[in-house]
Amino acid sequence: MGKEGISRAVIKRLPRYYRYLGELMEAGQERISSGDLSKLMNVTASQIRQDLNNFGGFGQQGYGYNVEYLYNEIGKLLGIDRRHNIIVVGSGHLGQAIANYANFERRGFIVKGMFDKNPEIIGKEIRGIKIMSMEELGDFIKSNRIEIAALTLPKQQAEEIADSLVKYGIKGIWNFAHIDLKLPKDIVVENVHLSESLMRLSYNLTTVEK
Amino acid sequence: MGKEGISRAVIKRLPRYYRYLGELMEAGQERISSGDLSKLMNVTASQIRQDLNNFGGFGQQGYGYNVEYLYNEIGKLLGIDRRHNIIVVGSGHLGQAIANYANFERRGFIVKGMFDKNPEIIGKEIRGIKIMSMEELGDFIKSNRIEIAALTLPKQQAEEIADSLVKYGIKGIWNFAHIDLKLPKDIVVENVHLSESLMRLSYNLTTVEK
Repeated sequence: MGKEGISRAVIKRLPRYYRYLGELMEAGQERISSGDLSKLMNVTASQIRQDLNNFGGFGQQGYGYNVEYLYNEIGKLLGIDRRHNIIVVGSGHLGQAIANYANFERRGFIVKGMFDKNPEIIGKEIRGIKIMSMEELGDFIKSNRIEIAALTLPKQQAEEIADSLVKYGIKGIWNFAHIDLKLPKDIVVENVHLSESLMRLSYNLTTVEK
Repeated sequence: MGKEGISRAVIKRLPRYYRYLGELMEAGQERISSGDLSKLMNVTASQIRQDLNNFGGFGQQGYGYNVEYLYNEIGKLLGIDRRHNIIVVGSGHLGQAIANYANFERRGFIVKGMFDKNPEIIGKEIRGIKIMSMEELGDFIKSNRIEIAALTLPKQQAEEIADSLVKYGIKGIWNFAHIDLKLPKDIVVENVHLSESLMRLSYNLTTVEK
């Protein structure tokens, strides 16, 4: 199944398909037509057909999609058919929120350790996950085959720590710090810039009011 | 300054301009050429000129942009030249992370109250912000002119609470619940779907590895 050349817009939409298909599956539904899926997800049926065609289709004319099959195939595309070991770097409220979110685990994202530089919280446990000092980062990443680091630090520290993480072998950074990280091209960075999201909300509010 | 017809892609980029201009301003820089801004932000100079032309330009040929002026104008467009009163509905770790993030306040987003249904945390204070019971939502929203609600609740409760919030007069919902809210068209919803973001990271990791 070729993944090259799939547009970012399609990739952005895949997790949403995955979510809806998961809910249909939980509700016991075995098949769905692109028309019904379209109504449910509030996108056009032709968009759905086009999106899923990128991956070879999965559907049959007049028969609809097999929900479980499609769910599993999209899961494979998203790389969540296997486990990903995660660490949380920065164990304030946001880091703790992430460590506490058991739903990530259901999807195969396992938080193996948390880190902070604040001695007052080092040693504490969140859902059985120990908060360690920053000095332990390198060894922990190597001996636990950690692939992803959630970076929930103030932006002043984020750049330097991100560089170290890459040196220690981290492949993907889930970046909550409000900064654009400059890292080697083979490192995957996914940004969650909350204040930018809040500004977009504010922009749209201002526009609606006019 | 006409805002209609500006593409979503441009709007998405505005907060990033705002962030970089703010940093330049803090560093004392008065002017910047589109070329220099382009290098700094790692986008093409023509993209920058095009984006800013949507709002009438702000720049002069051979002279560059006035950093502070551009920063303030984009701030006005984003609606952050005025205060927005916020409540946080759902006072778990994520809700507390948001209430604690003083940076939002700098941008004019003021968290006025927090809410939860868990009696064990009702009455507690986070940075001086009181956690109240869900029964107090309606009165609080009305008497404090709350415009935005951050919805940091499990998805099972989110839909019902969102409907109530709209009934009480909330205009914008910053939705962290992993669900697509179905609300009247004049209500602005900005979604932060963390698990979808994590899946995109995983997708890109899987693609890089191949």
